[in-house]
Amino acid sequence: MGSVTVFGLPASTDVARVLACLFEKDVEFQLVRIDTYKGNHKVPEFLKLQDCSGQVTFKDGKTTLTNSREICRYVCTEHADSGNKNIFGTGALERATIEQWLQAETQNFDPPSSDLVFQLAFAVPLGLIPDQTIIANSEKKLAKLFDVYDRRLAESEFLAGDEFTIADLSHLPNSQYIVTKSEKGRELFKKRKNVHRWWNAISSRDSWKKVVEMQQEHPGLLEKFTY
Amino acid sequence: MGSVTVFGLPASTDVARVLACLFEKDVEFQLVRIDTYKGNHKVPEFLKLQDCSGQVTFKDGKTTLTNSREICRYVCTEHADSGNKNIFGTGALERATIEQWLQAETQNFDPPSSDLVFQLAFAVPLGLIPDQTIIANSEKKLAKLFDVYDRRLAESEFLAGDEFTIADLSHLPNSQYIVTKSEKGRELFKKRKNVHRWWNAISSRDSWKKVVEMQQEHPGLLEKFTY
Repeated sequence: MGSVTVFGLPASTDVARVLACLFEKDVEFQLVRIDTYKGNHKVPEFLKLQDCSGQVTFKDGKTTLTNSREICRYVCTEHADSGNKNIFGTGALERATIEQWLQAETQNFDPPSSDLVFQLAFAVPLGLIPDQTIIANSEKKLAKLFDVYDRRLAESEFLAGDEFTIADLSHLPNSQYIVTKSEKGRELFKKRKNVHRWWNAISSRDSWKKVVEMQQEHPGLLEKFTY
Repeated sequence: MGSVTVFGLPASTDVARVLACLFEKDVEFQLVRIDTYKGNHKVPEFLKLQDCSGQVTFKDGKTTLTNSREICRYVCTEHADSGNKNIFGTGALERATIEQWLQAETQNFDPPSSDLVFQLAFAVPLGLIPDQTIIANSEKKLAKLFDVYDRRLAESEFLAGDEFTIADLSHLPNSQYIVTKSEKGRELFKKRKNVHRWWNAISSRDSWKKVVEMQQEHPGLLEKFTY
C-alpha cells in the first residue's frame, strides 16, 4: 500500500467524488492544492474546469489515475477491508447491481447534471451569462431521469439495494450544487418523495458533510476573479 | 527567471513573510498547500511548527531556499525592477540601513515575539496550556525593544527611513498575531504613539491585507485537532 495523494480543489465535482470515497473508506491521504497568485489576486483555478480531464489526479505509490469514478473503484478494491465495507458490494451479484447504477450515473445523470452545474455555479465566476436554454433542457432531462429513480427508490433504500454504495456516492457532487444553487434544482429532488428521502440520507453522511465543509473552507474554484 | 513556488500554509509566520514580499514585488507565484486527512479529520499541520526549519520552502527555477528572510532578500534582488522598487533600497547607504533594521528584527524582535506568538496562538490548538511566565517575560522584552523603536519612529516614518522596506515587512507576521490574540499584546503597540502609527501604516498595506485574508480563508494551522 503506497501513500495516497490527491491533487485538486475540493470545489471540483471530480475531486469531491474522490474525497467522499476516501472518507467512506477511512483511507489516509494528502490533499495537494495549488493556487496561483499574481499582483495580490488569485488567478482563477476554475478556468481549468473547462478542460474537465484535468480536474483530479490521484496517486497511490506508482499508480496514477485521473478519472474520478475509476479512482473510486480502485480505492474500494485496494482498500476493501478498510472503512465502509458495503460500499462496493460483497458478492458478484451486488457488484453487478452497483455497476449498473454507476453506469446510470455516468451515462444518464452526469451529462445533464454537469451542464446544469456549470450554468448554475461556474458561469458567473467565469464572467459568462448563464444560458437559460441549457438550464431548461438539463432540468427537463433530469426530471425524466428522476421519475425513473423515484420508482427505483420506492423499492429499495438506495440505488443498488438497501446499502449506501459508490453508485449513490457518485451522485453527490453534482447534486450538491444543483440543490444549493437553484430553487428549481432543489425542487427536482424535493417534489419526488423517494428521491427526496434518498438525497437526505446520502447528503447527511459524515463523509459527505466533511467534503462540503472542505468546499466551504476553500472556495477557491468559485471565487470571482477580478483584476 | 524561473517559475516561483511557495510550499506552506499562510498561517505560518515564515510563509506569511514570504507571501507579503511576493505581493509587494508583484511576482507571480504558485502556493502549494498539503493537508493530511485521516478518517474525516485533518491531521494537524501545525505540529510541524515545532520544527521551525520546516515552515516554508521556496523554489525559483533551480534555486531552493527555506529561510524566510533570505527568501525576501532573494525576491527583492532577483525581481529588483518589479512591483515596489523602494522596498530593498536604491543605494548602498539605504541598503545598509535596511540590513541594520532587518538584523534588529531577526535578533531582537523575533525571539521574544515568536515565543509570545507560540503561547498566544499555537499552544491551545496543540493541547498545551499557555505558559504565563513565558508570556510575561516576552512582553517585558518587547516593551523594552518597542521603547527603542518608538524613539526611532519619531525620527522617520518607517524603520529604515521614510519608505516602507522589508525591514518593516519582516515585523508583520508576528505582530499580527500579537495584536489580534491578546489585549496586552495590542497595548504594546497602542500605547506607544510612533509604534502605533507605524503599525497602522504597515498593517494596512494591500499586500499584507491580502496575506491576512489568506490566513483567514485557510486557517489550517490553527484548527483545533480533535479525534
